[in-house]
Amino acid sequence: MLDVCLPGTGGMMPLPERHLATMTCRCGGYTILVDCGEGTQVALRRQKISAFDIGLILITHMHADHVSGLPGLLLMIAATERSEPVTIIGPPPIAAYVKCLKVIVPYLPYELNVMELPPATVPLDCDPIFQIGDMTVAPFLLQHRIPCFGYTIVVQRYPEFDAAAAERLNIPVRYWNLLQQGQDVIGPQGEAWRSEDVLGPPRPGIKVVYCTDTRPFDGIVQRAHKADLFICEGMYGDLAERERLYEKSHMLMQDAAVIAAAAEAKLLWLTHFSPANPDPAQYLTELQQIFPATVVSKDGERVELKFP
Amino acid sequence: MLDVCLPGTGGMMPLPERHLATMTCRCGGYTILVDCGEGTQVALRRQKISAFDIGLILITHMHADHVSGLPGLLLMIAATERSEPVTIIGPPPIAAYVKCLKVIVPYLPYELNVMELPPATVPLDCDPIFQIGDMTVAPFLLQHRIPCFGYTIVVQRYPEFDAAAAERLNIPVRYWNLLQQGQDVIGPQGEAWRSEDVLGPPRPGIKVVYCTDTRPFDGIVQRAHKADLFICEGMYGDLAERERLYEKSHMLMQDAAVIAAAAEAKLLWLTHFSPANPDPAQYLTELQQIFPATVVSKDGERVELKFP
Repeated sequence: MLDVCLPGTGGMMPLPERHLATMTCRCGGYTILVDCGEGTQVALRRQKISAFDIGLILITHMHADHVSGLPGLLLMIAATERSEPVTIIGPPPIAAYVKCLKVIVPYLPYELNVMELPPATVPLDCDPIFQIGDMTVAPFLLQHRIPCFGYTIVVQRYPEFDAAAAERLNIPVRYWNLLQQGQDVIGPQGEAWRSEDVLGPPRPGIKVVYCTDTRPFDGIVQRAHKADLFICEGMYGDLAERERLYEKSHMLMQDAAVIAAAAEAKLLWLTHFSPANPDPAQYLTELQQIFPATVVSKDGERVELKFP
Repeated sequence: MLDVCLPGTGGMMPLPERHLATMTCRCGGYTILVDCGEGTQVALRRQKISAFDIGLILITHMHADHVSGLPGLLLMIAATERSEPVTIIGPPPIAAYVKCLKVIVPYLPYELNVMELPPATVPLDCDPIFQIGDMTVAPFLLQHRIPCFGYTIVVQRYPEFDAAAAERLNIPVRYWNLLQQGQDVIGPQGEAWRSEDVLGPPRPGIKVVYCTDTRPFDGIVQRAHKADLFICEGMYGDLAERERLYEKSHMLMQDAAVIAAAAEAKLLWLTHFSPANPDPAQYLTELQQIFPATVVSKDGERVELKFP
């Protein structure tokens, strides 16, 4: 089970009634946070999401509305007395930026690691670069004015364990867990038990794709293919804004719906609305004609995704 | 007339219902902002205070809850298309910190100046170090864990102009303004007109003293002497917290009231409440027994101070 929440859904600047865009993915006691603009710690408090479990912070890009909340978040995590390490992943110059923050966040009770992605060389089909609990993370390059990455988060699902087969093979129960996780096992008498002999066929996990800020392009369709949840920016719904948005490397809500349909995603959440778009829900009917499972997210949008 | 507002009144961390402590002083089209924790731009928006006029930002000290909102504020000012310079004044390492912010705030359409105060050498009776419009600013050293300054903001009031005397001296009206501002003038025929000949006695201006974070000490009484408005931190009202607060270089609301009484201030606004003090107003009766003109401020506390 994966709990996904958007504590904030705004772009560019935080508003009294709309926090800046941020997402949490929670699974098995581990939390991933994606983007951390000014006020993210408040948005998390509002949704009663504990900072204690945040072990991984993914940053899409280094514009202020996606990173200014990092010092406050790091202190919020510190206040929970977390002692496990925290990792931040993002494009350059994330390492220089985090180093600078030590001026105002000099002491943290946990180890802070920074993994700086290469600026423009991650192929679209790259493997996951990080695993936390049962969640894996793969970045993919977007098309924005500065290096910017989307992220695919997958909750792996182990194949079904064939207990009858394990019993037939006389495998003691204490080895079943390792075998289920795909590991082969040597028994106490030198028996060689292979996981493939007690596992069913591969089963799809849960796939969430987070995609902001970017102009629309075909690569996003590939990445969002059959995603259980595709979360995408939609600055405006007014078609007259299209050209101006593309120039600024953003997209319309309608573009996101077209991508979701082409990708055969199961669900689309729109986010990162412009402050000049105070009522994005007015476009919902039009958007659902393009892609029926479209949600114009509000702060606190939430879903529990389960294995099929 | 001086418009004073506290868009935020919280200490340590921003909460959904309480922004971090910040103050604006507005006079004649000029705005001074004191402290800028995470979310200050949202607090300003909530109070409908324009960022366009913010020409001076005073920082008390370099703890995150007093400076993390700077990048967002600088961008908010930029969005108003202000082109006049903005000056930031604060203790070390404010210059290094602002330099670092260029990672996420690379371009500003106005000149940004930083004046770093000496860490621990400003005497209590120092002269104003900055003037903006009719407001002057004087810092004074507080007693906190790191270098920390309070600020006295005074709106100067010129002495009354004696028009009858100016007419008796045959001074043309076009010179009156300069004379009223205390400047002597040489007339077209070499006449020497002295401002003191056409001005009444000095008149007190409007004095506001902002004081956080600090343990209580006598120097604050001197600084707040006869202030029209003394704004002071009050983390807790529970007397049992006193020792712990002093250790952390903070004070109780009751300490602030004692200082206000000793200083013969006209009005006390308490601010910078601990997140663990969700209802500071419960101590109001007790506080007003110490100093009757005590206000337990809420976000948006506001007053227009006028010359007596």
